[in-house]
Amino acid sequence: MTNYKIVFQYDGTKYNGFQKQGNTDNTIQAKLENILTKLNGSPVEISASGRTDSGVHALGQVANFHMETSLSENELLVYINSYLPNDITILSLCIVPDRFHARLNAKSKVYAYHIDLNKKADVFRTRYALSHPEPLDIDLMKAAADNILGTHDFKSFCSLKKIKKSTVRTINEITFNISDNELVIRYNADGFLYNMVRILTGTLILVGEGKLSPDAISTIIESKDRQNAGPTAPAKGLFLESVSYE
Amino acid sequence: MTNYKIVFQYDGTKYNGFQKQGNTDNTIQAKLENILTKLNGSPVEISASGRTDSGVHALGQVANFHMETSLSENELLVYINSYLPNDITILSLCIVPDRFHARLNAKSKVYAYHIDLNKKADVFRTRYALSHPEPLDIDLMKAAADNILGTHDFKSFCSLKKIKKSTVRTINEITFNISDNELVIRYNADGFLYNMVRILTGTLILVGEGKLSPDAISTIIESKDRQNAGPTAPAKGLFLESVSYE
Repeated sequence: MTNYKIVFQYDGTKYNGFQKQGNTDNTIQAKLENILTKLNGSPVEISASGRTDSGVHALGQVANFHMETSLSENELLVYINSYLPNDITILSLCIVPDRFHARLNAKSKVYAYHIDLNKKADVFRTRYALSHPEPLDIDLMKAAADNILGTHDFKSFCSLKKIKKSTVRTINEITFNISDNELVIRYNADGFLYNMVRILTGTLILVGEGKLSPDAISTIIESKDRQNAGPTAPAKGLFLESVSYE
Repeated sequence: MTNYKIVFQYDGTKYNGFQKQGNTDNTIQAKLENILTKLNGSPVEISASGRTDSGVHALGQVANFHMETSLSENELLVYINSYLPNDITILSLCIVPDRFHARLNAKSKVYAYHIDLNKKADVFRTRYALSHPEPLDIDLMKAAADNILGTHDFKSFCSLKKIKKSTVRTINEITFNISDNELVIRYNADGFLYNMVRILTGTLILVGEGKLSPDAISTIIESKDRQNAGPTAPAKGLFLESVSYE
């Protein structure tokens, strides 16, 4: 069986998240698998680098799947794209070694959270950014981000109540960019817990509003208690930008 | 009666164009007038710089209306925005001299047409750009644009079959910008005929595809026959960017 790696983007607005669940076909995974399964004649499963929540977007999600086909890589890419809805698009498709696994081999990921700082929300960004008309103190947010960097147990920043696996992650970089009145907070880490980027962002927003001190971050991390962190920022502002492999 | 000028933006995707028509309330004009009429207690009509077609967007549409209210300008702006759907937003509101009329006093307008040149259409631009995966020869398009500039009878670039008024317009500037694989053709003119920007763009695309010579433009203009120009480009790629007044 040939192992194919795909890099793809999607507008998550209309979908119930990435992962297949229950009886609904309204997930990114189901849209892709249905096309591959029909072509293959028997079920094809894809493994993505990770799930994204309902409403979260992706610029460069990565997945792999095993199948045999007489189509060339480019023909297969064109075939899949021709059946995908216009809010999901495969950017590239290539053959990879059999042992490649999009989730298990991922070394780091970059997520970006978009915040529209216009006093009146930009009508063209309502699906892709959180509107925050009140000013944010970016310097305070940067100071708080410095306390997030590094290797920590991020249990306070995870929505799941029962977690069996390790909640230790390493955040390599957090950057802040403002352009056209839009703030983009970009997180580079070896991995993220469930809702982690959205809770980190909700917490940083509290700091930017002056409602939480940058120094409080370390205490929140140490408490390992979700109740102490800020709210979960809405899904629509979040983009999975890229996944890196060795 | 006080004369108010508003500058507003909208995502035209869901609307049947700007102008009120028949029994539908699904126009930008109706959304605005319904709010003002309710506040005023009697009908308020707004005059915009011009109509935009169904699906066309605006970054800086201008309109004016007459009414009396005890609200300050800022209070009135906040009031209207609080009742508008989130795909229409007033950016500014100010009191202007009684004789100001958004359409009659407009001196020039800028429209921009967005073309997504990615081989696979960007999933985040499907509502805001025409996807054109095949390459376009921008130099040929610029040469054709040079033949469009200036004062001409643009009857060949107007969809209306029976036109009583003058079809002479002056195009001051046409620029081409490519950024992130998106081509933006920007037109600055003293005014535009019905569908004129979309037909000009459809014609320039034919030139960019090598299917029409830049020199053919003058012949098309002289013919004063819509049949000789290119197709009407889709509405979704078109943005009214700004309207200038003396």
